[in-house]
Order: sequence, then C-alpha cells, then structure tokens
Amino acid sequence: MSEFDRATQVSERPRVEASESPSGDGEPLDGRTPKRRIFDARVHDGWDIGGPANGGYLLALAARAMAASAGRPPLTVTAHYLAPVPPGPIEIVVRTVRLGRRMATMSATMIREQAPVLEVLGTFAEQSDAGVQLSTGAPPDLAPYDSDEELVIREGVDVPALQRRLAVRLRPGDEGFALGRPTGRAEIAGWFAFADAAPIDAIGLLLVADAFAPPIFNSGLAMGWVPTAELTVHVRAEPAPGPLACRFASRFVQGGLLEEDGEIWDVTGRLVAQSRQLALIPRT
Amino acid sequence: MSEFDRATQVSERPRVEASESPSGDGEPLDGRTPKRRIFDARVHDGWDIGGPANGGYLLALAARAMAASAGRPPLTVTAHYLAPVPPGPIEIVVRTVRLGRRMATMSATMIREQAPVLEVLGTFAEQSDAGVQLSTGAPPDLAPYDSDEELVIREGVDVPALQRRLAVRLRPGDEGFALGRPTGRAEIAGWFAFADAAPIDAIGLLLVADAFAPPIFNSGLAMGWVPTAELTVHVRAEPAPGPLACRFASRFVQGGLLEEDGEIWDVTGRLVAQSRQLALIPRT
Repeated sequence: MSEFDRATQVSERPRVEASESPSGDGEPLDGRTPKRRIFDARVHDGWDIGGPANGGYLLALAARAMAASAGRPPLTVTAHYLAPVPPGPIEIVVRTVRLGRRMATMSATMIREQAPVLEVLGTFAEQSDAGVQLSTGAPPDLAPYDSDEELVIREGVDVPALQRRLAVRLRPGDEGFALGRPTGRAEIAGWFAFADAAPIDAIGLLLVADAFAPPIFNSGLAMGWVPTAELTVHVRAEPAPGPLACRFASRFVQGGLLEEDGEIWDVTGRLVAQSRQLALIPRT
Repeated sequence: MSEFDRATQVSERPRVEASESPSGDGEPLDGRTPKRRIFDARVHDGWDIGGPANGGYLLALAARAMAASAGRPPLTVTAHYLAPVPPGPIEIVVRTVRLGRRMATMSATMIREQAPVLEVLGTFAEQSDAGVQLSTGAPPDLAPYDSDEELVIREGVDVPALQRRLAVRLRPGDEGFALGRPTGRAEIAGWFAFADAAPIDAIGLLLVADAFAPPIFNSGLAMGWVPTAELTVHVRAEPAPGPLACRFASRFVQGGLLEEDGEIWDVTGRLVAQSRQLALIPRT
C-alpha cells in the first residue's frame, strides 16, 4: 500500500437503518430515506503545509469515502474549506444526492471535534473513451522527468512537509519565488510524482490539483498563506502510469481573492484533470 | 420589479423548530441543530432552452434562496444538475454549513415533485475592494453595445425562449453556428443585457454564466442539447450598471464531456465573474 493510499484510508461505520435511529436520520426529501454513510478516517501527519493539512489531501480523503459510497471514481468535485485541519481523527458523513446509471452525485461533510471543516459536492462516474475529441491546449514544456534529480527548492529553504511525500520537479526558474527571485509571472509548472513512485489515480489527481506552491508567489506581489475558499477539480481521463506534467496560473487578483487554474497532463500528453480554486490572497 | 427578479422570486415557509418537527429535522453534525430553511418558488415559463429551464436560471433561483438565508450575495457557487426541470412549482431546501464573519457556506437542494433536481454548494460574502490587484486578461473585443440592434440570430432561426428575455448581441460571425457557418473555433463572445434593461447583480451573473449558446457549436464538431453536469461561478466584483462583455470557450472535448470556461466583464473593463462548467457533448 502506498503512502498516499495509507494516508487517505477510510473505514465505514456499521450502518444504522434510519428507522432505528432515535434522532431521525436525515431529511426525507423525496419521501424515501436518504442514504447516509459515516466513515472514520485520520488526517495523517506530514501532509501539511506548515501545520494545517493540504487542501488537496483533505479533498482526496473526503472523495475516497464518497467514491466508496458511489461505487465509482470522481468526475467533478468541489470542496469548500471551512477551517484549517490539523492531524488527528475525523469523520466523513456521505449522503447520496442522486444515483444515476452513469453518474452518482454525492455530498460529504468532514467533521473534526464536532465541527464541520470541509464540505464537498461531487459527481462520480467511470471515464469513457467515446465520441468526439478536441484539444486546443498542450502540456507545459518540461525537460523529461528525472527521478534522480533532487528537488531544487529543497536546498536552503524551508519546504512544507507535504513536499517530502512528493517528488515534484519544478520547471527551472519557477522555484524562484522560494529564493527571492520570483519570475514576475503568476505561474508555476513542473512534474508531479509521489516520492514512493505510487501510481496516481482519480483520487490522487485531487491531491495533485493543490500540491504546488501558489503561482501568485512568482508574481512577486505576495507571499504567505493562501487559504483556499473553494476548489473544483474535473477529472478528464484516467492517467497513464508515470509522472504528471502540471501548470498552475493565477490571472486575476481583486477584492482580496484570486483564482488559480490548473491543468494536469499525463506522460502520453493527454489532459487528465483541470482545476480551479478561489483563494484568499495573503495580507501584506 | 424586473422580469428576472420576478422569475427568481422565492418565498420562505414559516420555520418549524427542529424540536417540534415529528420527523427529526436534520443531522446534528456539530451537536447543535442545523439551520434549515425551506423556500417555495416556481420555475417560470420562458426561461427555457426548448423545454427544460436554463441551467443558469435554475442556479440563480437556488442562489436567491441561499443568499436570503446567508444574508449576503454569492461569491462562489457550484451546481450539479440532476434532471431537466420543466416550468412549475419547486421547493428549495437551504442548509447552513457554516456561518463565518465574512463568509457563509450554504448548501441547497431544489426539489420538484418530491425528487431532487439540482444540488448546490456555495459560499456567500460581500465583495471587498481591498488589497493587491492583478489582471492579465482583457474583455473580448466588441463594438460598443447598441440596444437598438436586433439580435442577429433571431432572423430565420429557432431561438430558445430564454433569448427573448435577453438582449444578447453576439460578436459578428459568432452567430455562424446558427446559420450553418460555424467559425471553426469553439468560442462565442458578445454582450449580455436583459431585454427589459434590468440591472445585473451577483445573482444575475449566475444566469449570465450559462446564457450563451454552447461555444462547441462554433467548432462545427457538434450541435444539439449540451446538458450541464456541473457549473461553478466565481463572482469577482459587483458589476457596474450596463451590459456585460462575455466570452465562453471550450478547449477540451474527451470522454463524452467538455468544459466550458466563461469570463464576464462589465462596461468599465472589470472582470466581474469567471465560470466553468462540465457538460455532456451531444451524441452525433
């Protein structure tokens, strides 16, 4: 079992039928008892960015429970971040919104010490290969991935714990923000891989979508904690085995907020995910 | 009251305290009774695209109830579309996920004839003007808005009912898809305004985000119904009075799905919203 799989393990509690639940187990929206399942899990140490767990990691944890309930992998998921989450036990309450033939829509609440810390809404479905194809984008221009190369920003700078689980290789120059030499452009690109070379599936892509430093750092406008308000990831294909070529960019900062768009490509040059988040810009 | 305001009116039902509700009124996630409010509304005729109501209109309806509950306008909302919705009465069940000082996170289920048809998760907050600004984008290059000009595609083609409520002015050439002359590029730009010249607020922006024909039509690859699976809108500023310059584009079609990205700008050249949806490509 890979480090990531271990760190995103969830364990379902024995189900209690709604009729047996003394408190009344949910909302009879459609005249039937909604399906609601509760999972226990743990926010593991070492998937943090200086304390609070990484947002993509938290989304992957929640999606693991949702995918188990849906019986299929994530297609499009949106997380709203309610509070920073330190390591420790959590529970994930998963509700079935609608089970369709191809698509299943689920919602989930991650709860820590009785308080909601993450709310997720997602639709889950197997990928299909059918039909019309169009691509008017391309992966970032990166030198071939070299697993022996050391992570450039590891030298002389404080690296978030998360990065020690990963084997990210930034595009040369894009590490500039960490060395006091931002590129002047709110963009960061590079290869993503797990340090233990584990394969990356649809759940893993949710981590990838938030695993790079905020591209705004390279604008030179801001450094600091960039808390995510909302993150949406579209899984567009099952990745081929190997590292992933990623590019993240912010184009608009206004009203104390910025968006961050991500594209994630597999080694065959196929787009495997798109992401967008709305985040708070660090106070300067 | 404008046509849009009338068509998105919601009316809250008298609240029943959870303790008085015989069925048990929800999930005591955090040890307290969750705030849950129920609104009655109506999917009005004439906001459809050949039968089912427009997705942006449905999102606006749900967000109207959520914003009323949150006491602030939408900042980022995500809707998952569960079923086509014809005109008629609906109910909207709004739950408070978390009420913060600036941000309030809410979820909502739109229900028609006892079945969920739309699920929404959103964070609501007033816009702020503070801090660092960055913009590396620009509105589409459009001739000045002329409210006297007739909608080009009204001549000789079947126009969805929705468009009769609006005064959309497409960029010359971008109506080509409707005349059998697609531009060859999956992009559509133009001005958005209401036919009754009503002002456009944050709720209105949710309609705008889905009010143009699917840009994929101009690729020449596909025509037909493009059902939205998921739509996320980030409101980035309160629009200045006047029409809005909009650009929608699809870059990737694969696995039977496509994304559609939108940028919405006000007349002062300020970005007021970004949108992205994941939709099913028409079967050809």
